[in-house]
Amino acid sequence: MMNGAESLLKSLIDAGVEVCFANPGTSEMQLVAAIDKIPGMRPILGLFEGVVTGAADGYGRMADKPAATLLHLGSGFANGMANLHNAKRAFTPIVNLIGEHATYHLPLDAPLTSDIAACAALTSDWVRVSQSAQALAGDGVEAVAAAMAGRQANLIVPADYAWSEGCEAAAPLAAAARAQVSGEIVAAAAGALRSGKPACLFLGGMALRERGLKAAHRIADATGARLISEVFPARLQRGRGRPNIERLPYLGEFATETLKDFRHMVVVGAKAPVSFFAYPGKPGTLWPEHCNLLQLADQQQDQISALEALADQLGAAAFSPQDDPALPEIPAGPMTAETVGAVMANLLPQNAIVSDEGNTSGIFSFGYFDGAAPHDWLTLTGGAIGQGLPVAVGAAVACPDRKVVNLQADGSAMYTNQALWTMAREELDICVVIYNNSSYAILNLELMRVGVENPGERARSMLELTNPSLQWTQIAAGMGVQASRVTTTEDFRLQFQAAMDSRGPRLIEVVL
Amino acid sequence: MMNGAESLLKSLIDAGVEVCFANPGTSEMQLVAAIDKIPGMRPILGLFEGVVTGAADGYGRMADKPAATLLHLGSGFANGMANLHNAKRAFTPIVNLIGEHATYHLPLDAPLTSDIAACAALTSDWVRVSQSAQALAGDGVEAVAAAMAGRQANLIVPADYAWSEGCEAAAPLAAAARAQVSGEIVAAAAGALRSGKPACLFLGGMALRERGLKAAHRIADATGARLISEVFPARLQRGRGRPNIERLPYLGEFATETLKDFRHMVVVGAKAPVSFFAYPGKPGTLWPEHCNLLQLADQQQDQISALEALADQLGAAAFSPQDDPALPEIPAGPMTAETVGAVMANLLPQNAIVSDEGNTSGIFSFGYFDGAAPHDWLTLTGGAIGQGLPVAVGAAVACPDRKVVNLQADGSAMYTNQALWTMAREELDICVVIYNNSSYAILNLELMRVGVENPGERARSMLELTNPSLQWTQIAAGMGVQASRVTTTEDFRLQFQAAMDSRGPRLIEVVL
Repeated sequence: MMNGAESLLKSLIDAGVEVCFANPGTSEMQLVAAIDKIPGMRPILGLFEGVVTGAADGYGRMADKPAATLLHLGSGFANGMANLHNAKRAFTPIVNLIGEHATYHLPLDAPLTSDIAACAALTSDWVRVSQSAQALAGDGVEAVAAAMAGRQANLIVPADYAWSEGCEAAAPLAAAARAQVSGEIVAAAAGALRSGKPACLFLGGMALRERGLKAAHRIADATGARLISEVFPARLQRGRGRPNIERLPYLGEFATETLKDFRHMVVVGAKAPVSFFAYPGKPGTLWPEHCNLLQLADQQQDQISALEALADQLGAAAFSPQDDPALPEIPAGPMTAETVGAVMANLLPQNAIVSDEGNTSGIFSFGYFDGAAPHDWLTLTGGAIGQGLPVAVGAAVACPDRKVVNLQADGSAMYTNQALWTMAREELDICVVIYNNSSYAILNLELMRVGVENPGERARSMLELTNPSLQWTQIAAGMGVQASRVTTTEDFRLQFQAAMDSRGPRLIEVVL
Repeated sequence: MMNGAESLLKSLIDAGVEVCFANPGTSEMQLVAAIDKIPGMRPILGLFEGVVTGAADGYGRMADKPAATLLHLGSGFANGMANLHNAKRAFTPIVNLIGEHATYHLPLDAPLTSDIAACAALTSDWVRVSQSAQALAGDGVEAVAAAMAGRQANLIVPADYAWSEGCEAAAPLAAAARAQVSGEIVAAAAGALRSGKPACLFLGGMALRERGLKAAHRIADATGARLISEVFPARLQRGRGRPNIERLPYLGEFATETLKDFRHMVVVGAKAPVSFFAYPGKPGTLWPEHCNLLQLADQQQDQISALEALADQLGAAAFSPQDDPALPEIPAGPMTAETVGAVMANLLPQNAIVSDEGNTSGIFSFGYFDGAAPHDWLTLTGGAIGQGLPVAVGAAVACPDRKVVNLQADGSAMYTNQALWTMAREELDICVVIYNNSSYAILNLELMRVGVENPGERARSMLELTNPSLQWTQIAAGMGVQASRVTTTEDFRLQFQAAMDSRGPRLIEVVL
């Protein structure tokens, strides 16, 4: 027999959970002891919960199964919420284990007491407070099954149930298959695409995996429909030999322009596109009024089967590879975000993973990678900054044989800079490319868009990361990551090549 | 006429709010523009919201009036929640301005959309979503009035109301006076203390200000009652020439021992003491069963008047100063947390502020400061780590003429290390003393307390901050703060003396 913590942990391991990103506290010590005692779970410490949850997001996107997280009470969960928000928008499988005070201690309202269930309900509709020590194991396997359906399971573990004896592990549950879309929906989509009117497929989620994109290309070849990716995909498979796809621009003005002529939009694995923010006098929905929207499959349905069924229904031919886009030339001259992007696209190794939180600096790089070696591209799905470094951690843990490149804006990097330490400790094969432009550059743009053309000192002080400028090589070294600073394209090329040629964490600070 | 953002900002300024700790995003650009345009509000950028909210906590504790915060949507608020939890437990006045999408944008469920009101309700019972542009000014002054009563006001500002024109500022509201306690309660407390049975006053909140402590000492002198402070006071005024007070130990076992003989406990400005966590077979309430509890004043009532009324009712004599406790000798020999504490107690300048998140390392220092120059001592009120650095920021902003010393545990410091950058930018007069023991030392203790005497590698990996060790001098330098590393008591004395003799931010890494 086991105590509750041991029965829960053993059940998670038996259900295939291998990794636990953790920042435990006193109320989770029984789970720490269980991880110590029972083999099979790799604990990975993050020095802030935003690292823990973001890493679980990166892991889940790449492994297509959940990591566990171990979080300390409501405050630990709150610290991880921003990246859980991003994970929710990415439909990433995650099992959060949130420690709670002993049930009989809760009424005393000790200093760390808070309403964890209410907090956890903000990131997931799967929230459970275990009701007994014996229930923990069953709750654990249900949490894994819920996560496998593409969401977060938030399991709240009272400390007294964790330490109570007399519990047994539970057998894994079969994961539910993704729901299939109906033949009527497929037929309706086929009708729209056969109409002869301008049409597009708007793709996200699993539709952006290679197999989904191949089916989409068959459809495009058969009907002339354009293929457009959502702005911030959770995981886009791309590069040489893979079907290419156009990405909807971030700025609403450009997105509206991209979509203005379509009469039909078939949406798969995404929501119909809306602008990130509202602006006075500008539309929030990005498709034109005369456009007919049709949701072929949502993010939790079987998107790939739906696309293949649609291709078949249209009598589309087998997928035929396109010519690969050309790689950009490696430029000489002054270093810019563009030259850095061109270098990386050329030097990216086979099967790399790109964690892209480059924001204003990274946005120009994306297109260059169309012709790069095959890779996976992970983006900031929910807009809550501080995701790029932790997602890189999780992706590297999930795929230890693949190089991870993190395109990272400086302002966002500060949010979860603690991830650098985990990279060092776990010797993760990650190259962090920090764009140090010493500003929240996107906000300078946004301030102009609300009509402030010449901001004064008080406004500038809130948008610029100067006085002092951040020295990323020192911050990285302080956390044990080898770092260098470059100011020319040629230096960047040398440093990036060296990083690609070796293993382990590196940071390159690109001074723009 | 003004737009909504301008009317809100002007109203806050007129109501006495001088400082806005900020990390704005797109939805807050109108408020940024308003701060730029209207003089009177000092914006202070934090590179993570946990810095912003923790600084507002430190400011409010020292200024006894609210700073504003400017937070970006639900994710920005969530990032600041842990320190708002601490502030809630400290009853600190804060006005949080939380940007929200334009009202008509919300139904589109854009990527950053979340239920902000539900999230904000977790840290305060004062949550308001402004209902029109014209309402913003009035909501702002009500928020200030609510904060002045010792709590957080969470005001959610839809972007379209912020940019709408045709608004006017609102006049400040008179702050409500704190509620007085009844004569019956005072008489009951007097009766208990006159009973001749062992009794104590258990003090927190405003009762720990100098005036409250003087009244408490009058009561103690008249009745023999012992004076005991809550474990984690928001702000304790102490040092030479001030009335001294015993602090309840953190560990439940010792706290129970301290309280075991009392038959009466009169509680003022605090909750009756409970243990921080539950442990198998140990009590959660720390007073003995035979002890009669009496709440003289809660944290939001007028605690000082209640104590003075009680002293008068008891016919207590005027306050007579005690002999000051002796300062510890400045020790020679190996550096320990104790020798560091003894040095600081000797060298602390007049009227300093100590932000104490020293945790296991800091706990031994506290007693040494009984005989130090008069100072204010601020602690981690809610147990959510990552508070010490930001609170130091806020205290230094509130009291620019006073030296701030931050006793800081390394694990906790990582949570909000971004505060170092704000210290550098604002040239705040703060000396951060980091105890680098390379571990979550308190958790090693807690693991033993749950019965794991010899943790294995997996457990140790979650409790130790080694492999690599953090290099705080590099992290600090990366954010622009002058830093040094010491390994001997004598070196520490020299570095600390130099920091006390100069102005501006400094970090001393104490390698234990």
